[in-house]
Amino acid sequence: MTNSTRSVGVIGLGAMGMGVARSLLRAGFATHACDVRAEALEQFKTEGGVPCADPAALGSACEVVIVVVVNAEQTDAVLFGDQGAATAMRPGGVVLACATVRPDYVTRLGQRLAERGLHLLDAPMSGGAAKAAEGTMTLMTSGPAAAYAACEEVLAVIADKVYRLGDRHGQGTKVKIINQLLAGVHIAAAAEAMALGLRESVNPDALYEVITHSAGNSWMFENRVPHILRGDYTPLSAVDIFVKDLGLVLDTARATKFPLPLSATAHQMFMAASTAGHGREDDSAVIKTFPGITVPAPKSA
Amino acid sequence: MTNSTRSVGVIGLGAMGMGVARSLLRAGFATHACDVRAEALEQFKTEGGVPCADPAALGSACEVVIVVVVNAEQTDAVLFGDQGAATAMRPGGVVLACATVRPDYVTRLGQRLAERGLHLLDAPMSGGAAKAAEGTMTLMTSGPAAAYAACEEVLAVIADKVYRLGDRHGQGTKVKIINQLLAGVHIAAAAEAMALGLRESVNPDALYEVITHSAGNSWMFENRVPHILRGDYTPLSAVDIFVKDLGLVLDTARATKFPLPLSATAHQMFMAASTAGHGREDDSAVIKTFPGITVPAPKSA
Repeated sequence: MTNSTRSVGVIGLGAMGMGVARSLLRAGFATHACDVRAEALEQFKTEGGVPCADPAALGSACEVVIVVVVNAEQTDAVLFGDQGAATAMRPGGVVLACATVRPDYVTRLGQRLAERGLHLLDAPMSGGAAKAAEGTMTLMTSGPAAAYAACEEVLAVIADKVYRLGDRHGQGTKVKIINQLLAGVHIAAAAEAMALGLRESVNPDALYEVITHSAGNSWMFENRVPHILRGDYTPLSAVDIFVKDLGLVLDTARATKFPLPLSATAHQMFMAASTAGHGREDDSAVIKTFPGITVPAPKSA
Repeated sequence: MTNSTRSVGVIGLGAMGMGVARSLLRAGFATHACDVRAEALEQFKTEGGVPCADPAALGSACEVVIVVVVNAEQTDAVLFGDQGAATAMRPGGVVLACATVRPDYVTRLGQRLAERGLHLLDAPMSGGAAKAAEGTMTLMTSGPAAAYAACEEVLAVIADKVYRLGDRHGQGTKVKIINQLLAGVHIAAAAEAMALGLRESVNPDALYEVITHSAGNSWMFENRVPHILRGDYTPLSAVDIFVKDLGLVLDTARATKFPLPLSATAHQMFMAASTAGHGREDDSAVIKTFPGITVPAPKSA
């Protein structure tokens, strides 16, 4: 069977979902999509895709449905709500759930889809919009062999690296959650370090240069601190994403009464930034919660 | 003037100091040293060095004195205490202060040495014992041009990278302190992340593999988590080092009433680990403060 005879659906054409859809189109799949925003769907149509009026219309046409929405509530709504995709998919179909959610939600989702004869692949994404567009993002996946078998070609097209973390749903999500724990703490730590440097009148550009070549470096320090140095808080990933994701980290641990002191502290810092009015700015804006410093002014391009 | 006609002294032949001394010997300097441990001094002598009975004897023989001790108290003792090096050095000599200390201590040290006609280079080290032995460590330095001029050749021999962070004492130390802030928080965050993974029955080796290729990675996560995976807490750098260094970070900020929420939390974690009996184990042993998990057992070699 060639790609062009296989119908794949993408629910949610945001920054990540549009990249996934375009990767599928490039590979020759008959690619369907739906989105609440008419302009995103129109753009997708001009690029050769098949727009669908709602998730049920998409589900009835597709063997593989990729859900690229923001959270568990939206995942539930597009699969099981009014005109939900799962209600219309044929038995044997597979759902890739890509939102970052609580691990116990994914486990239950697998059971609910199985009751309808559908497979679930637990498949949270990592890598950002640019990599999604190139088809080079990372997927942290888990699920039964049948789920993988039903979407091998699709996985190969949308991601560069597909980590297979076991046959139980939730394992992929747990690893993603732990990645977000580290990402969130490291962004807040980068802000705390740069804030102390500003407080102590250390040259911030020199500080960045030294740290990125020293044992204090992190992927996030290297990636986010340039936003602070340029005074550019255009959101690549927003403060409110980490209010949500560190919240999921803490919810996951709280379910077994497990303490996470650094995650809890970093979550408070992102909440302080959000309530101070920076929720939709780049997550590096968490530095604005520190008193008594002047962050670098925006640099003209 | 060739290296062999220049006398350089190293005070403190610990893991870092011995590396510095050997780098100087390799480069042909007439290298002097002193240490409270007779066996270290004996070893140094067999390698061609000149052992000194006390810091004053070393100071009277050397133009450049490198102080590689643990903290401000020891730095003060070997320079200004009974038989201190600074009391015996000739005017125009230069002291390299390499311990991680409070920035205000370094500023005062520069003034006290200047009163005796001596130069100070603020020169905390980074990179660990292996790099010190190779002469490839990093120095985070600051000080007046005269201090640099007096020890250019020495710097070139003991370090691979010499960051010059300004002409005021304390700037090098501030950058080192901020590096330690990040290093300490990142080690504690690595432990917290691995602890959550163990609690959630994620395969720890797979978790390490994914994180080190994802946005949650840090230099410390990549370097320290293998100790946890092998169950090997042989101290490369001990828990008590971060009790000390994060303490210095917090003291530095407290001097201007500046809040550091993540550093304060990480410091509490290292103190909990130390008081639970892990102070002299590798700093990754901070994971042992998490309840309700079983860390990987030691792997036989």
